Amino acid sequence: MDGKFTSLRIARLPEPGPLTADTYDLVDGPMPVCGEGECLLRLIYLSVDAGSRAMLDDRSDYVLKRGIGDSPTGSGAVGQVLVSHHPDYAPGDFVRIRYASWQSHLVVAPARMHGLAKIDLDEVPLDAHLGLLGLAGFTAYVGIFGLFEIRPGETVVISAAAGAVGSIAGQFAKIAGARVIGIAGGQEKCAFVRDELGFDDCLDYRGDLAQQLAKACPDGVDVYFENVGGEIQRIVFEHMRDFGRIAMCGQVAQYSGQGEPDGPNLMTVVLKRLNLRGFLAADDFSEFPTFIERTSRWYAEGRLKHHSSIVTGLENAYEAVNNLTTGRSRGKQLIQVSAQH
Amino acid sequence: MDGKFTSLRIARLPEPGPLTADTYDLVDGPMPVCGEGECLLRLIYLSVDAGSRAMLDDRSDYVLKRGIGDSPTGSGAVGQVLVSHHPDYAPGDFVRIRYASWQSHLVVAPARMHGLAKIDLDEVPLDAHLGLLGLAGFTAYVGIFGLFEIRPGETVVISAAAGAVGSIAGQFAKIAGARVIGIAGGQEKCAFVRDELGFDDCLDYRGDLAQQLAKACPDGVDVYFENVGGEIQRIVFEHMRDFGRIAMCGQVAQYSGQGEPDGPNLMTVVLKRLNLRGFLAADDFSEFPTFIERTSRWYAEGRLKHHSSIVTGLENAYEAVNNLTTGRSRGKQLIQVSAQH
Repeated sequence: MDGKFTSLRIARLPEPGPLTADTYDLVDGPMPVCGEGECLLRLIYLSVDAGSRAMLDDRSDYVLKRGIGDSPTGSGAVGQVLVSHHPDYAPGDFVRIRYASWQSHLVVAPARMHGLAKIDLDEVPLDAHLGLLGLAGFTAYVGIFGLFEIRPGETVVISAAAGAVGSIAGQFAKIAGARVIGIAGGQEKCAFVRDELGFDDCLDYRGDLAQQLAKACPDGVDVYFENVGGEIQRIVFEHMRDFGRIAMCGQVAQYSGQGEPDGPNLMTVVLKRLNLRGFLAADDFSEFPTFIERTSRWYAEGRLKHHSSIVTGLENAYEAVNNLTTGRSRGKQLIQVSAQH
Repeated sequence: MDGKFTSLRIARLPEPGPLTADTYDLVDGPMPVCGEGECLLRLIYLSVDAGSRAMLDDRSDYVLKRGIGDSPTGSGAVGQVLVSHHPDYAPGDFVRIRYASWQSHLVVAPARMHGLAKIDLDEVPLDAHLGLLGLAGFTAYVGIFGLFEIRPGETVVISAAAGAVGSIAGQFAKIAGARVIGIAGGQEKCAFVRDELGFDDCLDYRGDLAQQLAKACPDGVDVYFENVGGEIQRIVFEHMRDFGRIAMCGQVAQYSGQGEPDGPNLMTVVLKRLNLRGFLAADDFSEFPTFIERTSRWYAEGRLKHHSSIVTGLENAYEAVNNLTTGRSRGKQLIQVSAQH
């Protein structure tokens, strides 16, 4: 696997809904050459993100939109250094890289070296560096610790609770001392959120969500970590408590090209004096080292669980994207492109 | 006028749209008796607010909803003390009272004495104490100075710019050093906002608002003072700049019982990292003295204008409400129930 370079190209912009196998072309090519001050990596796990689907939607105004012939991507990768012409890295080092197209190997140019970091596998498993310690975890961290103060005993609701960001956000909210209620689709996923991740409860949006929410949060919702949009958003907005706070980092429900439905009437925001904050964790990495330090420690103390859903082989990338958009993923969705060791 | 007590009662809950003359009953009654520690006021101007209409809408969840037989109200009144059994007030004093049903006279009970304040007519005219120095002005003050920092040179957009709150909010934003663009309905109102209130520009929403906004704010909108809801809200949301802030204190467009239309898709909030804050200035009066002091000074310095629209006579209260909801008011809408002197 080390010797052959392969990469994906966007072959067609899909119709709304799941991707088909011909969305991407698998292209062979010469192994990239590692120049002065550069590193050549063998990639192992690639991150699959909501943005990986959104960038294919021709009608969206998604910031990272791509076209036919472009490289697909997620929010980074982990891999191993094969060749190093940089003093800080040696062959055999395991690394995380913030920018990586979906391909088997990557040369990290000097201008991108700031996005490269060595990984200590003694602390946290390799795949968790794209979830718990990756952009998903950092997004959860900023949303729970960076925007609002969450007071012990407050009720925090997490949508897409079995997903990469939600699964971690809920665990962070537990650490902050909150009572944490997840929302997920289906009894099996709810059991995962409750039993494996340790949320206080998890509501199945395939049932009567408004009724379940009223029962689980009789005094209303103090903080809503909003990740989905659509009907779930509308229902939780109605159950917010006065002076409630809403952290918004995405709307998974509309990333598959089905367009942008109307949102809730915002009179609720006035009458309940809500504070809504949209954020993208990637705007500001200044807290990233603190995030890594605290999250690694909590993981070592057994206070955090991590979970990845892994699809093997670049040629199956479309399935990894579909797992994400159809809700088959548990925790962080990855593509594995070479063996871990 | 001093000797006869009259008051309004809600006679019927109206259909959507303008109120009719039979919405309220005018009721005569005995003059209220001023007890121990109380004051009897002759009311002069009554405040008419969006809430005065919203409280009649049976289907809304407006916090102050009232029923048949109840007293209609706005956000306070100004008047003159006729009888005082309280050491701080003497007959002849002009006063502002925070809670007042729509009636000719009012006894201020000890429990409501904290909402009573003497007015110095040398500084600011009597009617301005319900607009510039009333809840309308305080709402504008909290929205512009209390929620976000507005930096000099930023672009601030004010909807309902000719209205009670918007007309003052825009003037405060000018004092904060912002470039201020109003939105109002019709060329005559826009001229009022531009020429009399001194906004930098005012856009007529009866024209192509999206196009006008793109031209007036080529770099987008930094701060939006949102007062209307509906289609205007949707258009301004699309023109927000990254990291824009939105202060929301009402949605005039939906106060006439026509129901609650959907809001904008909130993916904009994420992609532009917006911060939305709903607020009701009446939640916290701790800054009220500072507001009065600063606003009076700015008025004395000629940096603020005030404007009232006045309907005379309790029996015409329904017209005052209609002026507000149909946009005929300029500045603060009042009902005058007795002569000023």
